[in-house]
Amino acid sequence: MIVALAGGVGGAKLADGLAALLGKGLTVIVNTADDFEHLGLPISPDLDTVMYTLAGIANTETGWGVAGETWSFLDQVVRLGAPSWFRLGDRDLATHVLRAAALRSGQGLTAVTAELCRRLGIIARVLPMSDDPVRTIVHSAEGDLPFQEYFVGRKCEVPVTGFAFAGIEHARPTDAVRDALQAKELEAILICPSNPFVSIDPILSLPGLRSLLAGVGVPVIAVSPIIAGAAVKGPAAKMMRELGLDVSPLTVASHYRGLVTGFVMDAADAAFSSAVEALGMTVHLADILMRDALDRRRLAEQCLAFAKR
Amino acid sequence: MIVALAGGVGGAKLADGLAALLGKGLTVIVNTADDFEHLGLPISPDLDTVMYTLAGIANTETGWGVAGETWSFLDQVVRLGAPSWFRLGDRDLATHVLRAAALRSGQGLTAVTAELCRRLGIIARVLPMSDDPVRTIVHSAEGDLPFQEYFVGRKCEVPVTGFAFAGIEHARPTDAVRDALQAKELEAILICPSNPFVSIDPILSLPGLRSLLAGVGVPVIAVSPIIAGAAVKGPAAKMMRELGLDVSPLTVASHYRGLVTGFVMDAADAAFSSAVEALGMTVHLADILMRDALDRRRLAEQCLAFAKR
Repeated sequence: MIVALAGGVGGAKLADGLAALLGKGLTVIVNTADDFEHLGLPISPDLDTVMYTLAGIANTETGWGVAGETWSFLDQVVRLGAPSWFRLGDRDLATHVLRAAALRSGQGLTAVTAELCRRLGIIARVLPMSDDPVRTIVHSAEGDLPFQEYFVGRKCEVPVTGFAFAGIEHARPTDAVRDALQAKELEAILICPSNPFVSIDPILSLPGLRSLLAGVGVPVIAVSPIIAGAAVKGPAAKMMRELGLDVSPLTVASHYRGLVTGFVMDAADAAFSSAVEALGMTVHLADILMRDALDRRRLAEQCLAFAKR
Repeated sequence: MIVALAGGVGGAKLADGLAALLGKGLTVIVNTADDFEHLGLPISPDLDTVMYTLAGIANTETGWGVAGETWSFLDQVVRLGAPSWFRLGDRDLATHVLRAAALRSGQGLTAVTAELCRRLGIIARVLPMSDDPVRTIVHSAEGDLPFQEYFVGRKCEVPVTGFAFAGIEHARPTDAVRDALQAKELEAILICPSNPFVSIDPILSLPGLRSLLAGVGVPVIAVSPIIAGAAVKGPAAKMMRELGLDVSPLTVASHYRGLVTGFVMDAADAAFSSAVEALGMTVHLADILMRDALDRRRLAEQCLAFAKR
């Protein structure tokens, strides 16, 4: 059994490669700190990206939402004068409306996610990191911004100075998350190539989670979201620059120091190998860019083989 | 000023004709007893039909919902295994999602409706009969059915034996409804050609409403929803048969006896004139079938002229 920690697009791609190889043997623990409420509906962007990707219905054109999407709802929302900066597609909306109804009826996010996954034919287990609300706050020169306002509303244009995870002190990893990490069959933990600051850090910041990870006694492998001085997608590289950090896999590895035992980075970044090894990690070099389904599977395979060594 | 009492399609059509003539001088009090919750969203079918009709965006093909509708949401809802018997279109959904959010934030249905109407450019006032929940229960040989289950789910196929309005004893007409009915400028009250049993009766059954109407001292004009032994739309004629009543304007007039002072019915039903007059009502014969916008205006004009006499 393998546990993967994931945020949005990059994480979902590797999770998809792993799911193809492992089926039921994969548990994906997903960041929920970029969840928020929009038009009264609870939205879980990372969970949705992972679900849609594993279900094979992700919209590859937009990078979010459902394939074959239509926009009549949004069109009418604009007509009714309500906010449209967060674009909810008509198909995507089914997830949000059904999730809202289930949550309001008293079900937890873990149970709701399991049911949505079952309906979407997803075999791997997809677990929200917590059933308790955690909300990423982006510290910036313009003050604090809720994550989606920064990410979607402001298109990541505002320079960041740091992050906080509101509610994290009262949030708990779910029983399902604890069980997955303490399973006897657990062979490795993979940290997907997601944003370290706003996708993986919220998971790692859950009370008790780092000590859980420290006690697992299996390899903890991280895959770099940075290739040759740039992020494949999203604001990770831009954030590093704004935080005064080098945009390199070494910065990512340093960020995970003490937690990660193996680090997968692109062959293009071979120059950083010895510096990463000096952090106490074993390094595996590979072509880590995932262009298509084959790439996802290939990288997943390499990560699993690396973990076995 | 004119107050119209209305249910769904037929009522909305006459209200539309009246709105074209009266603008701000029209207040429509709308049945909310067919409201229900679906997929966790509060739905107000009659309010929506009236709003969409007055806004000129009603879907004339389906007879409900918004013109130019798309169905991606419903398609995905089916995929996710949730109930799809009540067809929520993508555009229509904007109303339900925004209404749900506003109601949950503590606004009343009257305030929410006013804001939706403002956004849709509706000049006439559209008032829900009450901000309190009332739910029509259909008594049938198969037991009690919630109204939408009877109306949409069972397509009115189950023979009815009677009706109840759950919650009516605790529901109150809103202040806006009371004010409209007690306004000094009030010239007439029109009961639109809506279903007497499930559209108009809930309004009339609100505690205190009949005595309010009795005290207005202006003509109360009803327009027959029955023409030549049939209902223009909906189950009114079928219900009459099942309740052992003649399908005729006389049955409608008898139903409103003691309340209505003037009765508008189709020239095709002239044979019932003296029987209706025997109920103490003045009769006006007209072509009451509303095929198009011109018909709506023409009938509205005749009703207003009739009320003045």
